[in-house]
Amino acid sequence: MGSSEPVKIRFGILGCADIARKLSRAIKLSPNATLHAIGSRSITKAQSFAQSNGYPPTTKLYGSYDAVLDDPEVDAVYIPLPTSLHIQWAVAAARKGKHVLLEKPAALNVSELDVIIAACDECGVQFMDGTMWMHHPRTLAMDHFLRDPHRFGPLKSIQVHFSFFADDNFLKNDIRVKPELDSLGALGDVGWYCIRASLFAANYQLPKVVTALKNPVKNKAGVILSCGASLHWEDGTVGTFHCSFLSHLTMDISVVGTNGTLHVNDFVVPFEEKSASFSTMSDGWFTDMDLEWNKKPTEHIVNTDLPQEAGMVKEFSSLVDGIKRLGLSPEKKWPTLTRKTQLVIDAVVASIDRGFEPVEVY
Amino acid sequence: MGSSEPVKIRFGILGCADIARKLSRAIKLSPNATLHAIGSRSITKAQSFAQSNGYPPTTKLYGSYDAVLDDPEVDAVYIPLPTSLHIQWAVAAARKGKHVLLEKPAALNVSELDVIIAACDECGVQFMDGTMWMHHPRTLAMDHFLRDPHRFGPLKSIQVHFSFFADDNFLKNDIRVKPELDSLGALGDVGWYCIRASLFAANYQLPKVVTALKNPVKNKAGVILSCGASLHWEDGTVGTFHCSFLSHLTMDISVVGTNGTLHVNDFVVPFEEKSASFSTMSDGWFTDMDLEWNKKPTEHIVNTDLPQEAGMVKEFSSLVDGIKRLGLSPEKKWPTLTRKTQLVIDAVVASIDRGFEPVEVY
Repeated sequence: MGSSEPVKIRFGILGCADIARKLSRAIKLSPNATLHAIGSRSITKAQSFAQSNGYPPTTKLYGSYDAVLDDPEVDAVYIPLPTSLHIQWAVAAARKGKHVLLEKPAALNVSELDVIIAACDECGVQFMDGTMWMHHPRTLAMDHFLRDPHRFGPLKSIQVHFSFFADDNFLKNDIRVKPELDSLGALGDVGWYCIRASLFAANYQLPKVVTALKNPVKNKAGVILSCGASLHWEDGTVGTFHCSFLSHLTMDISVVGTNGTLHVNDFVVPFEEKSASFSTMSDGWFTDMDLEWNKKPTEHIVNTDLPQEAGMVKEFSSLVDGIKRLGLSPEKKWPTLTRKTQLVIDAVVASIDRGFEPVEVY
Repeated sequence: MGSSEPVKIRFGILGCADIARKLSRAIKLSPNATLHAIGSRSITKAQSFAQSNGYPPTTKLYGSYDAVLDDPEVDAVYIPLPTSLHIQWAVAAARKGKHVLLEKPAALNVSELDVIIAACDECGVQFMDGTMWMHHPRTLAMDHFLRDPHRFGPLKSIQVHFSFFADDNFLKNDIRVKPELDSLGALGDVGWYCIRASLFAANYQLPKVVTALKNPVKNKAGVILSCGASLHWEDGTVGTFHCSFLSHLTMDISVVGTNGTLHVNDFVVPFEEKSASFSTMSDGWFTDMDLEWNKKPTEHIVNTDLPQEAGMVKEFSSLVDGIKRLGLSPEKKWPTLTRKTQLVIDAVVASIDRGFEPVEVY
């Protein structure tokens, strides 16, 4: 709190994960953020990462995560560490007064997440998870369609799919298949997006019951490589999702209401960075004798100069600026969405563990 | 058996169902079929139907179904009667030596279907169900993609959705919501297509286990208005489908293999009668930093002069011609596909009845 002029939020990054390259670029592209520091367990790794990613020479390079948190000029941290380390480092960051942008899956389970969120609450820092597609303007345009009682009407069903075909190296070595690092595997990685998409479609109402689909694929260490679930809302809405490391790159949301249908086939990462689309139809019916349809789907194109991950950094930084400069409270919407997503993740895990029994979500 | 010149197969139609309008037109459009007779329980209804559908004056109009079966000039019958009447009339037709084109759902359950198929076998007549989209050339083009080990690879997952939003009149009066006429409701009507599409995607391998999704919607009489299921194949392939009379018109198949993805959003009835499309992608991946995709989906357009239902009549008539004129045996492929579809229908019903327990299919 202090100056009345908006200043750029200074980011520190914990770790040199691959995804940190994308976020570093996003911070650079965001008008209200700046890359201030990066820390790795090895200073040479931080140096090499900074160099190969074109970091400005003013960036502070640290040989530990703690050093980033101890830098008083760091306003906010982006944490792309393995999920098992999230609780430790997100809590430590909050306690040092750093705002927390946390990669997904946010935590191994909702108990851990609640510790993180409580720390952020206590310390008055903003929490947001790294679900980038939430910040694409296309998502807002889809939201407008889905909330329209005339064009869409009451929601009835949701089908979501996110998969990519991981190569042998990934399946052996990636942190997302290691039980000690990312025990949620494909469910935590690609499944996170499927669940968020299902919640998005349902206007963030939690399903009442979640039932995992039989026969998820696990690796020898027991980490999920492919799974699915059905989600059942109180009002009768039914959702299903399938997430996998073992199938071709596919990112589908299909949502059907009484009056309309929405399709998007690249919801997590748009086919093209600056121009994304989705298709809708409302009041579709047949011509005489059901020979063909009375209309074709409408393609909606949403252009953006700011990539979705930069939109995320901009939104996060704007909230941080509001807290720092104007004394506003942290925006609760973001940890709330994170927690709902994690609750459904937990329910899928519980259903798998209980032999595909229905599990109540609350 | 007799002449060596192909002659047009003479159709009799049992009943004046709405769908018989479409089939009457299809018979007219098919180069090897001709509309010979129509029978209704009321002769005036048959007359009125023939008139309003532009039947040629030579068409025989009968006041009973039996009269159609007793007409020695009728080669084949199309049976669009309510499902509960299929066993009676399909068997009667076969016993009179008439080839049988039977609307879907073929029967109330596989036991009834087996009686029908056995009668057709014994009497040496062709059996085919009325799943029109199987006969669109697009279906063959999709099949080529799905069987391609390079462009598609081993099948991993299938998601299918078919719904339409029925109005109050339909939900009160349509035969498809009456327990004594079509007790399978939405499962037998729209669900039939979802199941056939799932089997099509799986190259007609039966799933090993079927689990109905919780909370199907039924009307007061207990007829299903909306339901879904997950299908589990021996090789780990997972399918889900959702079928409904309560959601906007939507006809989606999404199939994902290791190397490719296929989408079609109008699989049952194409948006346009003479030009249908589907989209595929193979070997899709991200550009550097996962900023966007390395390609966009490919749209495949399949043009046809013959509407799919006329293609069905043509295929059926060609088989009948082979039997009549060349002494060939009936083609077993069609009753086999019907039976597999019905087996899965039965498994979904059983799973619902057993409280959504997994049901083995065999």
